[in-house]
Amino acid sequence: MKNILLHINKAFDHRIRLGIMSILMVNEYAEFTTLKELLGATDGNLASHIKALEKAEFIRIEKQFIGRKPNTKYYATDVGKIEFKKHINALEKLLKNNT
Amino acid sequence: MKNILLHINKAFDHRIRLGIMSILMVNEYAEFTTLKELLGATDGNLASHIKALEKAEFIRIEKQFIGRKPNTKYYATDVGKIEFKKHINALEKLLKNNT
Repeated sequence: MKNILLHINKAFDHRIRLGIMSILMVNEYAEFTTLKELLGATDGNLASHIKALEKAEFIRIEKQFIGRKPNTKYYATDVGKIEFKKHINALEKLLKNNT
Repeated sequence: MKNILLHINKAFDHRIRLGIMSILMVNEYAEFTTLKELLGATDGNLASHIKALEKAEFIRIEKQFIGRKPNTKYYATDVGKIEFKKHINALEKLLKNNT
């Protein structure tokens, strides 16, 4: 029998991760506070999902100082964009039969 | 700022749960082994996700004996069907801007 979840990527399998990638697909980059507000996530929760996506090399992090203030930007990588599109397609295929 | 994950239902926020609901939306019921094979899940993993969906009253379980063999069927409840459709709509809305 066919495994219908074959192309659903585990790395994106959480609403916070879906949200992060969604935001980074349409915006060049986002800052931590922006992600936090848009996703309604706590610092710790958001940080752990960011870490997982970074480890998978689906997002990259750019740290710099603006004056004396640290500033962190998050970007989707090319691989991240490609894999996220595949994931969305697999999700749509899975759900399409049910609406 | 708007929380873009507001209508994403936590109870469905795992690929195994999406898979279970997808199957039970298009089939009147499914047995444990069918779900297991279609989802490529282990017994323990599948059982814990079934339990969570049952607790939320999104699926119901029917146990009976066929001769001496126990037989368990899983059905989506009416509430489960309604909430899953809402979840799919929210997911589609979240992802639509990105493809």
